[in-house]
Amino acid sequence: MSYAQVIATLPDYIGKTVSINGWIANKRSSGKIIFLQIRDGSGFIQGVIVRDEAGEELFQNAETLTQESSVRVQGIVRKDERSKTGVELSVTALSVLQITHDYPITPKEHGVEFLMDHRHLWIRSSKQRAILKIRSEIIKAIRSFLDDHDFTQVDPPILTPSSCEGTTNLFHTKYFEEDAYLTQSGQLYMEAAAMALGRVYSFGPAFRAERSKTRRHLIEFWMIEPEMAFASHEDNLAVQEGLISYVVSHVLSNCSVELAALGRDTSKLEKVQAPFPRITYDEAISFLQANSFEINWGDDFGAPHETAIAKQYDRPVFVEKYPVGIKAFYMKPDPSRPEVALCADMLAPEGYGEIVGGSARIDDPELLLNRFREHQLSEEDYAWYLDLRKYGTVPHAGFGLGLERTVAWICGLEHVREPIPFPRLLYRLYP
Amino acid sequence: MSYAQVIATLPDYIGKTVSINGWIANKRSSGKIIFLQIRDGSGFIQGVIVRDEAGEELFQNAETLTQESSVRVQGIVRKDERSKTGVELSVTALSVLQITHDYPITPKEHGVEFLMDHRHLWIRSSKQRAILKIRSEIIKAIRSFLDDHDFTQVDPPILTPSSCEGTTNLFHTKYFEEDAYLTQSGQLYMEAAAMALGRVYSFGPAFRAERSKTRRHLIEFWMIEPEMAFASHEDNLAVQEGLISYVVSHVLSNCSVELAALGRDTSKLEKVQAPFPRITYDEAISFLQANSFEINWGDDFGAPHETAIAKQYDRPVFVEKYPVGIKAFYMKPDPSRPEVALCADMLAPEGYGEIVGGSARIDDPELLLNRFREHQLSEEDYAWYLDLRKYGTVPHAGFGLGLERTVAWICGLEHVREPIPFPRLLYRLYP
Repeated sequence: MSYAQVIATLPDYIGKTVSINGWIANKRSSGKIIFLQIRDGSGFIQGVIVRDEAGEELFQNAETLTQESSVRVQGIVRKDERSKTGVELSVTALSVLQITHDYPITPKEHGVEFLMDHRHLWIRSSKQRAILKIRSEIIKAIRSFLDDHDFTQVDPPILTPSSCEGTTNLFHTKYFEEDAYLTQSGQLYMEAAAMALGRVYSFGPAFRAERSKTRRHLIEFWMIEPEMAFASHEDNLAVQEGLISYVVSHVLSNCSVELAALGRDTSKLEKVQAPFPRITYDEAISFLQANSFEINWGDDFGAPHETAIAKQYDRPVFVEKYPVGIKAFYMKPDPSRPEVALCADMLAPEGYGEIVGGSARIDDPELLLNRFREHQLSEEDYAWYLDLRKYGTVPHAGFGLGLERTVAWICGLEHVREPIPFPRLLYRLYP
Repeated sequence: MSYAQVIATLPDYIGKTVSINGWIANKRSSGKIIFLQIRDGSGFIQGVIVRDEAGEELFQNAETLTQESSVRVQGIVRKDERSKTGVELSVTALSVLQITHDYPITPKEHGVEFLMDHRHLWIRSSKQRAILKIRSEIIKAIRSFLDDHDFTQVDPPILTPSSCEGTTNLFHTKYFEEDAYLTQSGQLYMEAAAMALGRVYSFGPAFRAERSKTRRHLIEFWMIEPEMAFASHEDNLAVQEGLISYVVSHVLSNCSVELAALGRDTSKLEKVQAPFPRITYDEAISFLQANSFEINWGDDFGAPHETAIAKQYDRPVFVEKYPVGIKAFYMKPDPSRPEVALCADMLAPEGYGEIVGGSARIDDPELLLNRFREHQLSEEDYAWYLDLRKYGTVPHAGFGLGLERTVAWICGLEHVREPIPFPRLLYRLYP
């Protein structure tokens, strides 16, 4: 490591001799010249070995290389206009760490289940690597936006004693003598944290034990949940559109190689700039009805509805003020129209559906208590949550951002199994 | 929010009129002058209301305020040399959101169990807030160091099908028809990720279902697990000492108010600069024996041993090359002395014990297979892990950093229940 360069930095070494460590992603040989596609995790570079120049020993050595063999390579960095990175490597020395036999993932087509069984190897491919790289840049952008806007990271617990929304879709475990459940959302805890730290956000895993197998559902997924004391519904939307447009612009600036590897149409991403259009739930219903959807006021949206709405716009759209009956108990009613909540879902363009959901939270202690009773929630289990309205209640708002859906959209992926390193799906717990 | 300033920025507004939103942390009144300690999560400021200047209505209004009442306050920022932040606020207007009655946590002493039952409120106190703020700055520093050193964040799965180290201390759940366990460490997955992305790190929760109740053990805790392809034992230690010294220096530069709130002796932290001293396990055993500990070569260290060793140094110390028999099966033996592993634990000073543990990993496929057989591990369950040595194996190394122990040490805390927002301990799953 100490004496090697990483591939991503090679454009800074034109004309110089470098050492790199990596794997052979691909090899082509004409008998006179060998082209090695070398990867090291930071990027890819083409290594060139010309028989007449390199000498017989090096050439023969290189001929033995197979896909995913591990190597240490020395060479001179040359300018190359045809390469995506602008450089290639004239190989001058090669040391083989391991010749790989029968690597299971070949350049030919493989079935999804086969690839998923080999996820630990599949992530080495250039597309999967690009996705994971973009995922990490999206995380970085989210954190840097929130850090710059005075948010403090707070990690809510994963093991919780009970759930506000029923235990049907929860994973259960014995916590010594007690029952515990894996969190579906840290939001209630984040509300407590916002009363202590003002603006907070979580970044952690969440779990839904749903028997659904769609291209949008993961059993284990990652969420970012910001919560802001003294924030209104309007403040909430402003932070959300600021955050999402920042994230997209960060990816455009920092991940051009990866977006190209995915064949992503970046002109679509370039349009993602705040402010985002806003429509009310009422307007959305009228639009859907006018477009022959059988839907009534008070119904929730499904994926086809979300897609039809989002298709009208070239950037994410907020649908706001849903009926209180189809939203979570803690959402604050609109004072001027209490049958709708001060909430919004952000729908991504290109059919990716909801990526953010948020609301102002009920701050009135009596109203919250009424909601607990209407929904038959346990006042004892959630005594701590009710305390937040008893001891210095303040207006507050927040939202949850689904990381994998956001990555899937920005990368332009078909299925939510790809934007997470080791997906957990129905019937899929390996590797 | 949009029209209010946050308290932390008030030193920039000297002489100006500002609006702040917050809570009353404390109030003192002489009948002629009221001092309000106001907090908003970003910081604390003293608000001053002089009866003769403020007028009767404002004064009477302020007299009604109780601890943790929520307020909006307008005032003029004044320079004040006696204040820690250098400013105080001459209050000119006050609007009460809620008068809080019977706030459970008063300035008097409370028992630990009482405070833990009220953790959702306890985090509002100045010390607990300071700890959580420092925790978030430590996270930020860890991430920025690793990002700057070409690491990619990868999130390993939380739900895993089996465990390499036995299921006794694991939380079990039914994953539909299968059995699943909550992760104790993402390391094996991070090794797969390092083969795809070169340098990677995880930041996530881990779980140990241990019936131990010590000041160092949490049931649910957070870990950072970096893993590096093509890295040696020496590279590994260099990254670790670079990381920890960077984190400490970041906290010293960015958290002076919080460290002061905790009464932390910062002169001790200022000594934490790389390189860190290194001793071998052999030397540690000799030292302990010379100091009347009954311990033999091959025994593992307990907390008293770690404390005695660490006390010899004013910065963290690496203890390296433990006997292979007391360390994890995947650690690489020292080629020059195969009875010890190329591993190290980093012990924090001041009796805080191990905060980092790491090693070079076995890269030889046959040796790893032998270890699987010696330890009776399932070759089928871990076929994917064995694949990493079959398909382009390379030398690699990594480590795990325990976040809460690191925060406890940097903050100078007695117990590991305080450096996490909502601790999970034996018999403690609420709130």
